[in-house]
Amino acid sequence: MNNYISENKDRFLSELLDMLRIPSVSADPKFKEDVLRTAEFVKQRLIEAGADNVELCETAGYPIVYGEKIIDPNLPTVIVYGHYDVQPADPYELWNSPPFEPVIKDGNIYARGACDDKGQMYMHVKAFETMMRTNTLTCNVKFMIEGEEEVGSSNLGTFVKENKEKLKGDVILISDTGMLGNDTPSITAGLRGLSYVEVEVTGPNRDLHSGLYGGAVANPINILCQMIASLHDENNRITIPGFYDNVEELSAEERAEMARAPFSLDKYKKALDLGDVHGEAGYVTMERNSIRPTLDVNGIWGGYTGEGAKTVIASKAFAKISMRLVPNQTSEEITEKFQKHFESIAPASVKVLVKPHHGGEPVVTPTDSVAYKAASKAYEETFGVKPIPVRSGGSIPIVAMFKSELGLDSVLMGFGLDSDAIHSPNEHFGVFNYMKGIETIPMFYKHYAEMSK
Amino acid sequence: MNNYISENKDRFLSELLDMLRIPSVSADPKFKEDVLRTAEFVKQRLIEAGADNVELCETAGYPIVYGEKIIDPNLPTVIVYGHYDVQPADPYELWNSPPFEPVIKDGNIYARGACDDKGQMYMHVKAFETMMRTNTLTCNVKFMIEGEEEVGSSNLGTFVKENKEKLKGDVILISDTGMLGNDTPSITAGLRGLSYVEVEVTGPNRDLHSGLYGGAVANPINILCQMIASLHDENNRITIPGFYDNVEELSAEERAEMARAPFSLDKYKKALDLGDVHGEAGYVTMERNSIRPTLDVNGIWGGYTGEGAKTVIASKAFAKISMRLVPNQTSEEITEKFQKHFESIAPASVKVLVKPHHGGEPVVTPTDSVAYKAASKAYEETFGVKPIPVRSGGSIPIVAMFKSELGLDSVLMGFGLDSDAIHSPNEHFGVFNYMKGIETIPMFYKHYAEMSK
Repeated sequence: MNNYISENKDRFLSELLDMLRIPSVSADPKFKEDVLRTAEFVKQRLIEAGADNVELCETAGYPIVYGEKIIDPNLPTVIVYGHYDVQPADPYELWNSPPFEPVIKDGNIYARGACDDKGQMYMHVKAFETMMRTNTLTCNVKFMIEGEEEVGSSNLGTFVKENKEKLKGDVILISDTGMLGNDTPSITAGLRGLSYVEVEVTGPNRDLHSGLYGGAVANPINILCQMIASLHDENNRITIPGFYDNVEELSAEERAEMARAPFSLDKYKKALDLGDVHGEAGYVTMERNSIRPTLDVNGIWGGYTGEGAKTVIASKAFAKISMRLVPNQTSEEITEKFQKHFESIAPASVKVLVKPHHGGEPVVTPTDSVAYKAASKAYEETFGVKPIPVRSGGSIPIVAMFKSELGLDSVLMGFGLDSDAIHSPNEHFGVFNYMKGIETIPMFYKHYAEMSK
Repeated sequence: MNNYISENKDRFLSELLDMLRIPSVSADPKFKEDVLRTAEFVKQRLIEAGADNVELCETAGYPIVYGEKIIDPNLPTVIVYGHYDVQPADPYELWNSPPFEPVIKDGNIYARGACDDKGQMYMHVKAFETMMRTNTLTCNVKFMIEGEEEVGSSNLGTFVKENKEKLKGDVILISDTGMLGNDTPSITAGLRGLSYVEVEVTGPNRDLHSGLYGGAVANPINILCQMIASLHDENNRITIPGFYDNVEELSAEERAEMARAPFSLDKYKKALDLGDVHGEAGYVTMERNSIRPTLDVNGIWGGYTGEGAKTVIASKAFAKISMRLVPNQTSEEITEKFQKHFESIAPASVKVLVKPHHGGEPVVTPTDSVAYKAASKAYEETFGVKPIPVRSGGSIPIVAMFKSELGLDSVLMGFGLDSDAIHSPNEHFGVFNYMKGIETIPMFYKHYAEMSK
């Protein structure tokens, strides 16, 4: 099997680069044709790899690519989930090479989606091809590759609800997370949830001259800043009433266990060029970004942002704000609490609109399941080290949905690194990681089939 | 003379519309050719009106249009100042008709620059033409029309310093302000100064995924909001140390005098669709926007501002911030105090850069001068009502410069209205106001010559 992989390495890479050339940005309607072309690309590659019943399942949004290989109804069935859409690539000017013209440099593939999630998703297609060609497939497999993950998987829930029979299986297998390092493999055993809102603050009904009106009317940008600033207290705790009500508090033992993962604050600060870290009092960095809920402004805009100076009081100011949630918080609860609070703190001199975007629920995946143990053995086999279970700060909202709708746990076999700059300019994915994924995934199938007997 | 004006009304209007069609946005380099074309336009119209020695005086930036008519060295000399550049027109989508395709609707000329300052500047050209054609010019006149007022008149100071002989005169005449109403003419007797800075807050050295890093690193947008919010206290007073040190406090009598100007808070709120006004405790609206210093964010940006949701922690956040100054504050002093304070409140987790733009000094113009009295008589003659002296909240920084460099006071004969939406979408200027300006200006010359004898 490893022979097959090494013999086909160049093709495995060039196919991925072909897919990365298609700008499948789901958030921006102007890339619609490209997103659809990417779905078609994945469909064709699944057919070529040997999958049956491959189809584009239409949804209200972008289609879900489905394909399967049922070799024996008595064997366990692995459902592979991934996504072919990518984050927007702007600001373009910060990329060292254009985001949709992939290049391999210093052992890394640079492109939007190289890691998240085209690269990681495609490892599964190539691992499947390898098992088919080398006659080593030990489980049934069903692919479900969506095109709306980066905009909240809006239509996946409906698809899953309406296709429970088709999606019968034993475990969901996902590579859309990272690991601690190439010599410290890890498996994600928990994910934060997400509430995402857009807010609009309106002051005067039109832009005003700041000389003639400055000081006399509420400036919506100043007010928005005040409202945003008030969402954290001096300990960097979030001030929304009831925000922490349901937060799962970890025991001292659990926190001590977490603290054993290798982490260097100096290296962390150096890598990001930070004078200091910043976060909730009473928690260390690795807790702040995993077991604690957060509130971040993801975008803000208003007034004159061009070159030079314009003395204007804007009529409106906007922000996109997201909150990461931890177990026992729910997206609906937190979005509601945010909305109520944000409206309540607006002064009479402005009007406020809160528009909820998609949300997602936090999850903790069991580390004592057969699937987790099979994944652990797979990494151990290819990396030579037993992987560490970690809680990630990211969100894959559909993991909770798979559990509630299909009753299935997910196993999160990520091969990316924190430094891959996903969602950032110069996103990349190690060729080492891509190939290691293609090697490790078949090991999972092998151990999962054996341990399921 | 009024016959001449009414006979030529259509041409006076169509010439103004021609000039308004040229997008002379000085803040944006992409309009460079248009700004230069506008200078040439003004030059040609001055020549046609009968001015001598008309020329484009080169500067390090856009040229200054100069022209003169010296009829008798023993007569007083009026120096007309105006500007042919305009504010940027964005957001374009909020205009009911394109900003550089002027239309006359309901008695108003709609276009960027209709009032500020092309319309008001051109009244002087047409008033001059009228006096020339009807042989009624009673003073010498010198035109000095610049193209960089909206970007801080960066090169006018040098021009004035280097041309003191050429610019010898008795008074500066400017129409770049407004009046209280068409039945309540007023003359601006004071202007606020301006400090304008751009700030940049840098957190991590690249954009980060808000799930993986959220809560653990300083988000520069959140920090910028906190820093901006902290610039006002709960009484909406500015918290920069020493900010109010030199502020001229008006006496109770002066404030009582100001309160006599007609003003309806209800109408004001209704016109701007405000739930409430907002400003410094202890002062009323008309004080807040004229005799009190202010701090406004004119623009803010950072992170993802496109469609949909992107879960990013931006590396940088930016804001443009301006402060309006009142007598005895200086632009240099306040810019320095801002910079020092803003840098001092930045937490160790971010880096801050403060970049000062242009500034301008506050002024109070004397109401007992011959020029002011001549202007007052002129308005009384054409409007039938004695104009009220008012302090304006706007800034024309060059007024203080004319005083210090040339030793000349300015008289601010504005014909615009607050509702003209200058610096906003749908800027307009009443045809009534434009024509009234052309009628009133020659009256000023007449009275100024008589009273100077």
